[in-house]
Amino acid sequence: MIAVCKGAHMFSEVHKHVKKIGQPPGTAAYTGEKSEKEPIITITIYNPTEASEYTSKNIDECLSRMKSDVVTWIDVEGLHDVDLIKKLADRFSIHPLTVEDILNVEQRPKVEEFDNYIFINLKVILWNKKSSSFVISPLSLILGKHFLLSFQDHDTTRFDNLRARIQKTANQRLRQQNSDYLAYRIIDSVVDDYFIVLEALGDQIEQAEKRVVVRPKPNNARTIYHLKRQMLLLRKAIWPMREVIGHLLYVEDKIITSFTRIYLRDVYDHTMQTIDTLETFRDMLSSMLDMYLSGLTIRMNEIMKTLTIITTIFIPISAIAGIYGMNILNVPLMKSKWGSAFVFSLMVGIALSMLVYFRKKKWF
Amino acid sequence: MIAVCKGAHMFSEVHKHVKKIGQPPGTAAYTGEKSEKEPIITITIYNPTEASEYTSKNIDECLSRMKSDVVTWIDVEGLHDVDLIKKLADRFSIHPLTVEDILNVEQRPKVEEFDNYIFINLKVILWNKKSSSFVISPLSLILGKHFLLSFQDHDTTRFDNLRARIQKTANQRLRQQNSDYLAYRIIDSVVDDYFIVLEALGDQIEQAEKRVVVRPKPNNARTIYHLKRQMLLLRKAIWPMREVIGHLLYVEDKIITSFTRIYLRDVYDHTMQTIDTLETFRDMLSSMLDMYLSGLTIRMNEIMKTLTIITTIFIPISAIAGIYGMNILNVPLMKSKWGSAFVFSLMVGIALSMLVYFRKKKWF
Amino acid sequence: MIAVCKGAHMFSEVHKHVKKIGQPPGTAAYTGEKSEKEPIITITIYNPTEASEYTSKNIDECLSRMKSDVVTWIDVEGLHDVDLIKKLADRFSIHPLTVEDILNVEQRPKVEEFDNYIFINLKVILWNKKSSSFVISPLSLILGKHFLLSFQDHDTTRFDNLRARIQKTANQRLRQQNSDYLAYRIIDSVVDDYFIVLEALGDQIEQAEKRVVVRPKPNNARTIYHLKRQMLLLRKAIWPMREVIGHLLYVEDKIITSFTRIYLRDVYDHTMQTIDTLETFRDMLSSMLDMYLSGLTIRMNEIMKTLTIITTIFIPISAIAGIYGMNILNVPLMKSKWGSAFVFSLMVGIALSMLVYFRKKKWF
Amino acid sequence: MIAVCKGAHMFSEVHKHVKKIGQPPGTAAYTGEKSEKEPIITITIYNPTEASEYTSKNIDECLSRMKSDVVTWIDVEGLHDVDLIKKLADRFSIHPLTVEDILNVEQRPKVEEFDNYIFINLKVILWNKKSSSFVISPLSLILGKHFLLSFQDHDTTRFDNLRARIQKTANQRLRQQNSDYLAYRIIDSVVDDYFIVLEALGDQIEQAEKRVVVRPKPNNARTIYHLKRQMLLLRKAIWPMREVIGHLLYVEDKIITSFTRIYLRDVYDHTMQTIDTLETFRDMLSSMLDMYLSGLTIRMNEIMKTLTIITTIFIPISAIAGIYGMNILNVPLMKSKWGSAFVFSLMVGIALSMLVYFRKKKWF
Amino acid sequence: MIAVCKGAHMFSEVHKHVKKIGQPPGTAAYTGEKSEKEPIITITIYNPTEASEYTSKNIDECLSRMKSDVVTWIDVEGLHDVDLIKKLADRFSIHPLTVEDILNVEQRPKVEEFDNYIFINLKVILWNKKSSSFVISPLSLILGKHFLLSFQDHDTTRFDNLRARIQKTANQRLRQQNSDYLAYRIIDSVVDDYFIVLEALGDQIEQAEKRVVVRPKPNNARTIYHLKRQMLLLRKAIWPMREVIGHLLYVEDKIITSFTRIYLRDVYDHTMQTIDTLETFRDMLSSMLDMYLSGLTIRMNEIMKTLTIITTIFIPISAIAGIYGMNILNVPLMKSKWGSAFVFSLMVGIALSMLVYFRKKKWF
Repeated sequence: MIAVCKGAHMFSEVHKHVKKIGQPPGTAAYTGEKSEKEPIITITIYNPTEASEYTSKNIDECLSRMKSDVVTWIDVEGLHDVDLIKKLADRFSIHPLTVEDILNVEQRPKVEEFDNYIFINLKVILWNKKSSSFVISPLSLILGKHFLLSFQDHDTTRFDNLRARIQKTANQRLRQQNSDYLAYRIIDSVVDDYFIVLEALGDQIEQAEKRVVVRPKPNNARTIYHLKRQMLLLRKAIWPMREVIGHLLYVEDKIITSFTRIYLRDVYDHTMQTIDTLETFRDMLSSMLDMYLSGLTIRMNEIMKTLTIITTIFIPISAIAGIYGMNILNVPLMKSKWGSAFVFSLMVGIALSMLVYFRKKKWF
Repeated sequence: MIAVCKGAHMFSEVHKHVKKIGQPPGTAAYTGEKSEKEPIITITIYNPTEASEYTSKNIDECLSRMKSDVVTWIDVEGLHDVDLIKKLADRFSIHPLTVEDILNVEQRPKVEEFDNYIFINLKVILWNKKSSSFVISPLSLILGKHFLLSFQDHDTTRFDNLRARIQKTANQRLRQQNSDYLAYRIIDSVVDDYFIVLEALGDQIEQAEKRVVVRPKPNNARTIYHLKRQMLLLRKAIWPMREVIGHLLYVEDKIITSFTRIYLRDVYDHTMQTIDTLETFRDMLSSMLDMYLSGLTIRMNEIMKTLTIITTIFIPISAIAGIYGMNILNVPLMKSKWGSAFVFSLMVGIALSMLVYFRKKKWF
Repeated sequence: MIAVCKGAHMFSEVHKHVKKIGQPPGTAAYTGEKSEKEPIITITIYNPTEASEYTSKNIDECLSRMKSDVVTWIDVEGLHDVDLIKKLADRFSIHPLTVEDILNVEQRPKVEEFDNYIFINLKVILWNKKSSSFVISPLSLILGKHFLLSFQDHDTTRFDNLRARIQKTANQRLRQQNSDYLAYRIIDSVVDDYFIVLEALGDQIEQAEKRVVVRPKPNNARTIYHLKRQMLLLRKAIWPMREVIGHLLYVEDKIITSFTRIYLRDVYDHTMQTIDTLETFRDMLSSMLDMYLSGLTIRMNEIMKTLTIITTIFIPISAIAGIYGMNILNVPLMKSKWGSAFVFSLMVGIALSMLVYFRKKKWF
Repeated sequence: MIAVCKGAHMFSEVHKHVKKIGQPPGTAAYTGEKSEKEPIITITIYNPTEASEYTSKNIDECLSRMKSDVVTWIDVEGLHDVDLIKKLADRFSIHPLTVEDILNVEQRPKVEEFDNYIFINLKVILWNKKSSSFVISPLSLILGKHFLLSFQDHDTTRFDNLRARIQKTANQRLRQQNSDYLAYRIIDSVVDDYFIVLEALGDQIEQAEKRVVVRPKPNNARTIYHLKRQMLLLRKAIWPMREVIGHLLYVEDKIITSFTRIYLRDVYDHTMQTIDTLETFRDMLSSMLDMYLSGLTIRMNEIMKTLTIITTIFIPISAIAGIYGMNILNVPLMKSKWGSAFVFSLMVGIALSMLVYFRKKKWF
Repeated sequence: MIAVCKGAHMFSEVHKHVKKIGQPPGTAAYTGEKSEKEPIITITIYNPTEASEYTSKNIDECLSRMKSDVVTWIDVEGLHDVDLIKKLADRFSIHPLTVEDILNVEQRPKVEEFDNYIFINLKVILWNKKSSSFVISPLSLILGKHFLLSFQDHDTTRFDNLRARIQKTANQRLRQQNSDYLAYRIIDSVVDDYFIVLEALGDQIEQAEKRVVVRPKPNNARTIYHLKRQMLLLRKAIWPMREVIGHLLYVEDKIITSFTRIYLRDVYDHTMQTIDTLETFRDMLSSMLDMYLSGLTIRMNEIMKTLTIITTIFIPISAIAGIYGMNILNVPLMKSKWGSAFVFSLMVGIALSMLVYFRKKKWF
């Protein structure tokens, strides 16, 4: 499943999990959306001197091409064909719980060591330029001594570059190293995508900030809320990555060489950097909300000041006018020649003294 | 006791505990609500080749059926018959404090290792669709080398599926494994139920969100408050589960095999996922409250603007009208032919200039 | 000193400490309130077969009754007689700092291991039903191989039950065990009292909640503030208990047997439960304050809406009436037959259109 | 430097440090305020049987009096004479960085172990009754096997008591112990002063609380802000003390004996108590601010209610009066005998119904 | 790149990283701004007896001057010439990932140990007096047994003093020690610069505080927001320094001697002090915002009070005047001699009683 990041997402996450409740653990059940497309299996085989690639929808045909003493990378795109994945898992003696985790599109990122392989589950986060939102989808890696299995939901082009590179140049680092270095390359590209998403969201935050600084508007609150929510989603996907790669760094295992470990240390730093940026964004959004709310209050003050100034100037004038409009005999000065002069002076006097008072209080 | 989750719950939790204060520790005292129903005891006995099940209300009859070299699972539904539970505990050499903890329906989830068994206390959280609320009840497991005792408050159907599975198929994983795997299966089903509750609450949060985004209403605050409170209750029940299962993972004990440990690791991940979701929900509710409050302030601004616009347009007009309504002789232009024209121009002029001013300030 | 929990308490805590500043450390100085009452010393002596109890105000007389091979429990009620306590301390080779800590009624709960004894300082929290408030007082225990000294401020009846139980039944657990189990029993009763206090405060929170939910009132803020403050006081007293009992659990000492350790583990769980409840209460009070504040804003909106509706309906009517009340010749339609009809239509029209506008905006 | 705690303080802290930037590390540079006074050096020499004290401004004279097999305590008051301190440091083989730290009046409290001594840097916090504020100044201790060097800024009388005690009584604990116990006594007196400062601030908080509870006033906010700021300053000075004394407790060093360690454990507890109190004060101030803000909103509601009640009662009356004041022919009932009765009934009716409405809404 | 600290900065940070995404890891790619200037390479060679310095833009010429048994410091200013840096890296067997990190101007500060060197990445923060803002730029150090490579973006004069000192005096500490001490000196100067930036920002905070305390103004919010944002940027740069220097302290490596470790411990303390100050500033800004917001509410209360007082005094007067202005026959007292006296008394009475009421409520 490629979950589009909308309000519905977080809830769907819980929802999806529910489908398989009631079944015994280790039951292979796909929790994403059903798809009509057949899954595509791509097998890449390489060693320093030679490399080849086969695409097929038939697993047996694929597996028959595996050779010894080379690195075998089997990439499965599309998780809905449960039988196919179970068959593949059987061939590589994969634990039923691992199969369950691969098929669970809402799995929390994790690393699990088994006797013959390391299971790595990640979240791929891709930015969709058209909808200006991101999409979170799972990626599972099974890293063995000389093989790597990768499982993605739906077919994507994300590994095309990598495959091309493997085919193209002999004697490069990628060809000389084992499957652990290949796994590193995939993880590295996943973390690189996080930067793209953060950049795009950073742009949105920057725009929101500009608008909030200029003048608070009702829909600003909604924008900030929406961005905060996106941060929550990203956080849920990215935070566990720290543990994941931290775990890989300290795996006491012959599968990951010290050569690759240096590279993983680098990815770890990148993950820390994304987390730092994420937390900074969250702090910025909080500050922005504070500023927005203080902006609203400032605006309210402004409105109230206007109302108060106008009202306190004209209400006394109305009252005086009302008094001289009464049908009573003895209103003072009413009939006097200087009456009107006095009344108008009084009115102007009150208005002016109110203005002076407000001016002194620095209301305008 | 099956505590219905209402406002009363959290307080009842403290309340219940008080009942047995003053008694010596290890005193077996049921802290839930009294019930007239007799507790039901179900004994399930199985090994890879055979399986049988007995239901009885007589403990001696039940125990007489136990055999050696099989896994014995004794499930007690109903905790109010203290004597019965004490009798059972004696047979299995259970520590008096464990009995006390089993009977205390408000026990905080925990794991305790004893010489001959592991005591596991959990909270079962069930969603009640009718009342749209959840119910928290305790579940205690006593896991020994070849036996498992489970204690629930009131009779439920939650183990029916599991029992049916044990009877049905020979040579499946459940039958081949020992009591520790059975305990895992029970814990797994408990954690699965957490997802159902979180899904239901997630739906409520989503609905609340939609309403808050559209237009803040007085009862929104109450809804958010209610949801926050539910989160507090869930948190109190679910957070300790992390320790519980984390503890089980590192029990240096021959009771839990490495086979089962892999499965417990999986439950641990699920617990972490529920906690992640819970924390995300809490963050969302906080953001929602912020948005709700900013919505109230925005609305206040709107109301004040309306008041201010109307008032500042009509109050000067009233004042002018008042002036020309005075019974004074020398109001300027009063008797002039052009007087009324001037007065009306003045009125319209003030109104228009106020409107232009507000328009410029972008009040409407 | 039994510090009554009022606003004054927290400050008195600091205040009391100051009294002995300037004196060399280990100086025995009572920091509580002076009392005229003589302290009461109760000595309880027991072993599985026999038990006896002496009450006296003379320490030498008391000590003369001590026998070997029995557990001796000396309980001192009243800390103001410094000489008496020093004399007792000398007999048991108590470190001067321990004596200082016993006499300091504001001592932070702690455990300290010495060569020949373990010093345990606790806070007893008692609920006073009449004043609906709690009282915090210190309790010090000195736990040796075969003896237990307990020090309380002022005489209380809190140990009467325990003493009665020791005297009553031979061959019960309490009589068979050593002084460490007796210490556990005392600590357990102290923690049980925390539940009573939390229950009472829980009731107050529940009542406050009901009032806040129905309608925010000015004094609600004060109630919430008061409850929050109580939580701060409780927190300061209860949080260190976690360390205290955690420390006791890991004391590498022959004084505490593994038998008693299982019981202490149970008290540790109870302490964790009180802390959980305390934190939940704090979170609830925070949410309640948020709801209270949003309630105030909602109410303000309501008030402002009423004002705005009435004002915007009648102010234009007044203005029109004012215009037709002017003493000017050429007000249109003034003299016309249809004038009044028009004017009234205008007034009703404005009022109705305002009402329609507010209705559309869902103001009422 | 004795930095008076005002707004300027926190910034001066940064400011002072800057002075020596650009110089090589280990450069001895005084960062406090220059003083004309010559520093005073006091040498105290003691062992269980004899004790003597010399005051001088000449370091060589002082040092010549040192004897073997006694504890030598050299106290320097006044840090501005850099040469003098460097000379002293040379005699005791003090590391240049230690000298730099002694002279840096803004040094963060710390403990550093060197081969031949332990360097301890503390903050002395003294309450100034006249200005009702506190003063933070540094105190450095260099603790060697048989000597203690103490460095204070400006001369104070803080060690007079201690010196008098050393001279007065032979065979007391202070005389029998080594330099480490002397260091403990000094640290203990420093921490005791924290209680005095906290007591004084506690009084101020209590007064602020009383005022806030009664009625929020504009300057309350400023008081709370000021107190919060003081807490920040104290926190910055006191928090590191926890590490400092914690470090001293676990120094694997023959300089600090197990005898003294028991006493340091006691100081550690006192530090924890000051930190607890500090945090409680901070929480109280936060709650107080919340209550203050809710008080402002309550007051606003009250003001608005008054305005609304008066306005909504009299504005309709004015409008009706206006209508009957129009110079139009056909106002209904105008000329009728019962007209005025009707009009007045209408006016009173509107006023009463508004009052009933507000009463029902519990506005007054 | 020297990123000017503006709103754009934080986003540019993410932006820059993106440039090299899609390329294989370890690809040397400069992520800063292109520059036309040629990079300057300065080689400093010294041992206790002799020292020399060469500046060149040709790397081979530079490297030819290296001698054995001396400390060689190669400083590269300008990172845009990727080939030059790669060439240099090859000569010293630097890992490609290190080269990548050097060229990445947005690298998070870190320490990485390799077999033959330690890689240290720092953030230099410089205060720009003219623009009253700070500039964050990267500094990379490669510390080997007898050499130190330093890489800065653009040429600066920051090492001029240090180089002059090396040349000037023989037999000083700097000349006697190895490359690790030189690295310490550079790190120390970087951390010293943090104090200058914090001092400048401290001044800005102090000014903001003065303004906020006096009277809240709309742009105060913007100032506080801006300062908070700066703190976020600083925090992101300074926090990782704690880990960096903490890591250096515990490097089990022969490259860093115990002599230098004592000095690094000192820098660690300085870093802790900057972090303390940073956190204190953040807390101050939060308190300031609270005070600002309460100031706004106080001001609103003031405005509303003015409005309410004026309105509630004059509106009843207007209403009474209106009543006596009606063209109705039977207004009571209208024609009476005492009518006007009564009416005016009523008006004055209402006004006075309102004033008394407000006075009693302490509104003015």
